[in-house]
Amino acid sequence: MGPADASAVQVETAYALGQAIAREGWILLTGGRNVGIMDAACRGAKAAGGLTVGILPTATPRNISSGVDIPILTGLGNARNNLNVLSSQVVVAYGLGPGTASEVALALKSKRPVILLGADATTQKFFQGLSGQTVVCLDDIESVIQQIQTIVHLGSC
Amino acid sequence: MGPADASAVQVETAYALGQAIAREGWILLTGGRNVGIMDAACRGAKAAGGLTVGILPTATPRNISSGVDIPILTGLGNARNNLNVLSSQVVVAYGLGPGTASEVALALKSKRPVILLGADATTQKFFQGLSGQTVVCLDDIESVIQQIQTIVHLGSC
Amino acid sequence: MGPADASAVQVETAYALGQAIAREGWILLTGGRNVGIMDAACRGAKAAGGLTVGILPTATPRNISSGVDIPILTGLGNARNNLNVLSSQVVVAYGLGPGTASEVALALKSKRPVILLGADATTQKFFQGLSGQTVVCLDDIESVIQQIQTIVHLGSC
Amino acid sequence: MGPADASAVQVETAYALGQAIAREGWILLTGGRNVGIMDAACRGAKAAGGLTVGILPTATPRNISSGVDIPILTGLGNARNNLNVLSSQVVVAYGLGPGTASEVALALKSKRPVILLGADATTQKFFQGLSGQTVVCLDDIESVIQQIQTIVHLGSC
Repeated sequence: MGPADASAVQVETAYALGQAIAREGWILLTGGRNVGIMDAACRGAKAAGGLTVGILPTATPRNISSGVDIPILTGLGNARNNLNVLSSQVVVAYGLGPGTASEVALALKSKRPVILLGADATTQKFFQGLSGQTVVCLDDIESVIQQIQTIVHLGSC
Repeated sequence: MGPADASAVQVETAYALGQAIAREGWILLTGGRNVGIMDAACRGAKAAGGLTVGILPTATPRNISSGVDIPILTGLGNARNNLNVLSSQVVVAYGLGPGTASEVALALKSKRPVILLGADATTQKFFQGLSGQTVVCLDDIESVIQQIQTIVHLGSC
Repeated sequence: MGPADASAVQVETAYALGQAIAREGWILLTGGRNVGIMDAACRGAKAAGGLTVGILPTATPRNISSGVDIPILTGLGNARNNLNVLSSQVVVAYGLGPGTASEVALALKSKRPVILLGADATTQKFFQGLSGQTVVCLDDIESVIQQIQTIVHLGSC
Repeated sequence: MGPADASAVQVETAYALGQAIAREGWILLTGGRNVGIMDAACRGAKAAGGLTVGILPTATPRNISSGVDIPILTGLGNARNNLNVLSSQVVVAYGLGPGTASEVALALKSKRPVILLGADATTQKFFQGLSGQTVVCLDDIESVIQQIQTIVHLGSC
C-alpha cells in the first residue's frame, strides 16, 4: 500500500519491492491505479514474472496500472481501502499519504499484520500507540521479505 | 453468477461451465463461497487448470470455495454483488435466486453484457423488458461459450 | 424505491405517495437524487411536513433532491442500493428499472418486506417466484399505506 | 467520531459535546453503535433535543445506540467509515483508536474539515504532516463549537 504521489526514489524502491514479492511466489495486491507506489510495485512484480491483483476505486476500467493482471472494479471510491487490507495476508505500507494511513489504521482495526517500510519516527510512534498490535518498522526490502516469511511461517495469516 | 441453493443437476452443469470457461483461457470470477453454483463453477475451472477469483461477502477467510485461487475479502455483505458484475467482462447467470437476480439487474444498470443460462420464460421476459439492453438467453454451455467469444471478438468488453 | 426515468403521471403518483408516507409520521428513505421517482417522493414528503433521508451514490454533495433533509453521501455508486433496502423497514418499489429491480431483489435477499406499486403481471410473477417470501402487489397509494400499517402493527419490522 | 473503548471521563466529555452540537441546531452523525464515544455523543445530543444519525457497520438492527434517531444499516463493516466522513460537513475526532484514525485519514483524503479534540502531541504531528490540509487541534468543547461555527460561516462546507 502506498500513495499516488511518490518521488523517483520511492518509485524505484516500490518497483524493487514488487520484484522481491513476486520472486517469493506471493501474489501482490495493491490499489491498482497507474500512479505512484501501487503502479511501480505492480510493474516490478510483473517484470519478475509474478501475479498481481489491483482493487480499483472506479466502476469502469480506466487508469489501471499496466502491471495489474486482475483488476477488481469496485466503484466504491476510498471505501475500497478496507477491501485492500481485508484481502491481504500481510500489509506493507510505503510512503505515507492520507489514503495509505487509512489503510494502515484499517489493517490494525482488522488485526492484519502490518509492516511499515521507511516510516519516520512520528509515523512509527503514532501507529505503535494506536492498538495493542505491534507494527513492525523496517528500512530495507530484504528485511521486509524476511519479516513476511516469518509471518507466513508462523501461520499467523 | 448463481445461487447458494442448487440442485445436483445444476451443480453438475455449473461445474462443466467452469471447466469450459477455463479451457478458453478466461479467468472465472464468482461470489466465491463454498456452496451451490459458485462453488461448482470454481471447482470445475480449477479441474481444467484455470485461474479463479472469488469476491466474498465476509471480512474473514471462511466458507471459501476450495476452487478459488484469489479470494477478495470484502466485508460488504450483499453490497459486494455490485463488485462482482463491475469486475466481470461478461456476466453469465445460472439458477436464479434473489442474490443472482440482483446481480443481473446491477449488470444491466452498468451495461455489462448478460447471458442467462437455462432461464424460464418469465425470467427472460422480465429482464428483456428491464432496460434497453439485450439479454441473451441460452440453454447449453456450448452456446454460452460461443456467445462470450462473439462478445470478446466484437471488443465490446 | 424507483427509477430516475419516470413519466409525468409516475412523478405525480410518487409525489402523492411521499405525502401519504409523511402524513403517517414515517421517515421516507430514498436514493436521494434530484430525478424521477425518488425526487418526487422526497418533495411530496417535505410538502407534507415529513422527514426525509437520501442515500446518494456520490461522494460529493451534488444532484441531491431538494426534498432531502439528511443526505448520506456514500461514494459507493450502485453498491449503495443494498444500503437503501437494509435501512428500510418496508421497501415500496414503484416504476421498475434495473436499479430498482436490484433493490427489490436485495430486499428479498435480506428478508425485508416488499410492496410493489403498479407492477405489471410479468414483474409480479418474476418476484413472487424469486424467494419463499410473499411480495405484496398493489395498485393504489391508500392500499400501500394500509399494508405498511399492517406490517408495522404486526411488528415484523 | 470516536472509539468504542472510552474511559468514564471521555464518555462524559463526548456526552457534553453531543449536547453542545445539538444546542447549535446541527445534526449529529456518528458510527451509531451503543458503545463508547459514539453512544455518549448521541445520547447527549438527544438529551438536548437534537437530531442524530448513526451509520452502522451491521446489516441488521442490533447494538444501536439508544440516542440514534435515524439508523443507516450499511452491512459494510469498517468500509462504512468512509461514509461517516463523506456525509459529515465537519469531522470532530475524539479519543483515538484505529477505527477513528482511519476516519481522520479518510476525511483528509476527501478534504473534509477535521478537528481533533484532546489529541496528544504525536497524533497532532502525525495528522498535520499527512496532507496539505490544516488539522485543527483543540482542547475543550467550547473551542470546538466556535471552530465549527467559523467553518460554517466561511461556507467551506
